[in-house]
Amino acid sequence: MNTNFLKACRGEKTSHTPIWIMRQAGRYLPDYHKVRSKMTFLELCKTPERAAEVTLQPVDILGVDAAILFSDILVVLEAMGMKLEFQEKRGPVLPEPIKDRADVERLVVPDPEEKLGYVMETIRILRKELADKVPLIGFCGAPFTLATYMVEGGSSKAFFNTKKMMYSAPELYAEMMNKVTDCTIAYLKAQAAAGAQALQIFDSWAGALAPCDFGEFALPYVKRIIAELKGAGIPLIYFANNGSTLLDQSMTCGADVLGLDWRLKLSDAAKIVGPDISLQGNLDPCALLLPEDKLEKRIARILEEGKSARGHIFNLGHGILPETPPEKAKFVVETVHRLSGQS
Amino acid sequence: MNTNFLKACRGEKTSHTPIWIMRQAGRYLPDYHKVRSKMTFLELCKTPERAAEVTLQPVDILGVDAAILFSDILVVLEAMGMKLEFQEKRGPVLPEPIKDRADVERLVVPDPEEKLGYVMETIRILRKELADKVPLIGFCGAPFTLATYMVEGGSSKAFFNTKKMMYSAPELYAEMMNKVTDCTIAYLKAQAAAGAQALQIFDSWAGALAPCDFGEFALPYVKRIIAELKGAGIPLIYFANNGSTLLDQSMTCGADVLGLDWRLKLSDAAKIVGPDISLQGNLDPCALLLPEDKLEKRIARILEEGKSARGHIFNLGHGILPETPPEKAKFVVETVHRLSGQS
Repeated sequence: MNTNFLKACRGEKTSHTPIWIMRQAGRYLPDYHKVRSKMTFLELCKTPERAAEVTLQPVDILGVDAAILFSDILVVLEAMGMKLEFQEKRGPVLPEPIKDRADVERLVVPDPEEKLGYVMETIRILRKELADKVPLIGFCGAPFTLATYMVEGGSSKAFFNTKKMMYSAPELYAEMMNKVTDCTIAYLKAQAAAGAQALQIFDSWAGALAPCDFGEFALPYVKRIIAELKGAGIPLIYFANNGSTLLDQSMTCGADVLGLDWRLKLSDAAKIVGPDISLQGNLDPCALLLPEDKLEKRIARILEEGKSARGHIFNLGHGILPETPPEKAKFVVETVHRLSGQS
Repeated sequence: MNTNFLKACRGEKTSHTPIWIMRQAGRYLPDYHKVRSKMTFLELCKTPERAAEVTLQPVDILGVDAAILFSDILVVLEAMGMKLEFQEKRGPVLPEPIKDRADVERLVVPDPEEKLGYVMETIRILRKELADKVPLIGFCGAPFTLATYMVEGGSSKAFFNTKKMMYSAPELYAEMMNKVTDCTIAYLKAQAAAGAQALQIFDSWAGALAPCDFGEFALPYVKRIIAELKGAGIPLIYFANNGSTLLDQSMTCGADVLGLDWRLKLSDAAKIVGPDISLQGNLDPCALLLPEDKLEKRIARILEEGKSARGHIFNLGHGILPETPPEKAKFVVETVHRLSGQS
């Protein structure tokens, strides 16, 4: 097996810098569209054979060093009893958002094998089909990020309603967050039991929080998840998007790896997090628009900056954009391998 | 005159910490709606008497220490020859965005008194009506932020097209940016000549840039504007929204004051920018949802952190939200004055 990804997570020596790409199984790939055109996004998530198929596409096409389960962070909310839709233009919509105590009390903490069995089935298929070629990453949304969708009913700019609940009904907010956290712990344990070889927690909206609010209303729940998952014995990655100013706090979450968007140099991040945490990132997804010679220079710089970290997993700083030419994604993977490989 | 705002900009001693609020003349005020209901947003910008009226509302209602001209950063693009619309739900739309060299060459650098005379007229009315009660702030959008609207044709998430031009046609991008910069310099000089007593440059989308791109594609144009405006002899404020990781660069722009969103503590920012720059900010607009006792604690903390800076102008970290109760905005102003005033 290509174990470079797992080794870099643990800070061990690698034969080249491993790379995977957030949303690598996705809309920029014509092969993905072929599968997706036959069903809705949510149906694809719930059809293990097809979800496994699109998960494998970037492994074959790009040559990345890890596969990441094709799914969505929000499926867990459906399992908790919320209605969930994906609308073609608007993205995720939860038509009955959480407004009050009755809504929070109605949320269930499900048995993941029962309500999210399709995810675990996808993982089991993938472990067979990958045949130990590259490791498989499972994932979930961080409780704060999930809470924003639960309370706003979809994407948001200012997260007004979520922060309103946080500030004016902190006990209710905590109750909701504890349910989400309990659910997430069980969900990730089930993913690990089904065969996930690493787990990433996506905190897509953490960057909307002032440092004091992050420390009070988001980080404690991430810490609890990670503490509960330590026993699984697999690397844990925490990605707080747009979280440069939160790094001094997020480094205490217990994760083996911290993901970084492109706003902070890896070398500056390494100075903050020190020698016990690996870093993952952090090429601006828009940089894949650069001509190859300039793109290569930028990759080289990130590889150089990444040397300051205990371990470095190359990635984009955010999900790959649908407009990206697949051959540019392939060029990035090849260039990372070529520039970082021992010759 | 209440000169606390101007003094804090220059790092001089004040009798209390001055405060103004981004978008203080705006949709959270019923008084604003009364005026706005009679005309479109763009008509309001272009009707000096009414624009002056809404500018004065928060001075009277909230008791802020500075007035900021009611206008929009995008009116300058209309003056440069682009079509500009404000749609009730979608916000600003430029139906004919910049795509190629011909589009860039078509842009004009107008005489601001001729094409934006309504702005200067608003300023002249305001200086009379304010009667030196509080200083008047003029403003503009930073070239990069304006460029995103010019190229994307409106708001954007990833700024794909802007970055595409930046990367794949850097000469064309530079030509466009130089025109915008020339136009902005003339526009700000005209605002100062008409009576603006301070000028703020809003770089709303600077935070979308990796540090290396900010240094190459955004900051040099801001520097040129500030260098050209130094002669006006009034304080210059640069606000790079979501720009915490850019602060080591933006501090070199030449501004007297740097605005900060809520993601970085003022005391941490002061450590970076040193003793020659004042800071403005940085309460999370959503914090105005807090109950008064908790809101007061948060204001007190920001005032305490602001003491590390050469001078501190209290503000929100972003525009006040339309959902904000006006009495909460008033409470913030009164609390800042009460807690920071010499007794």
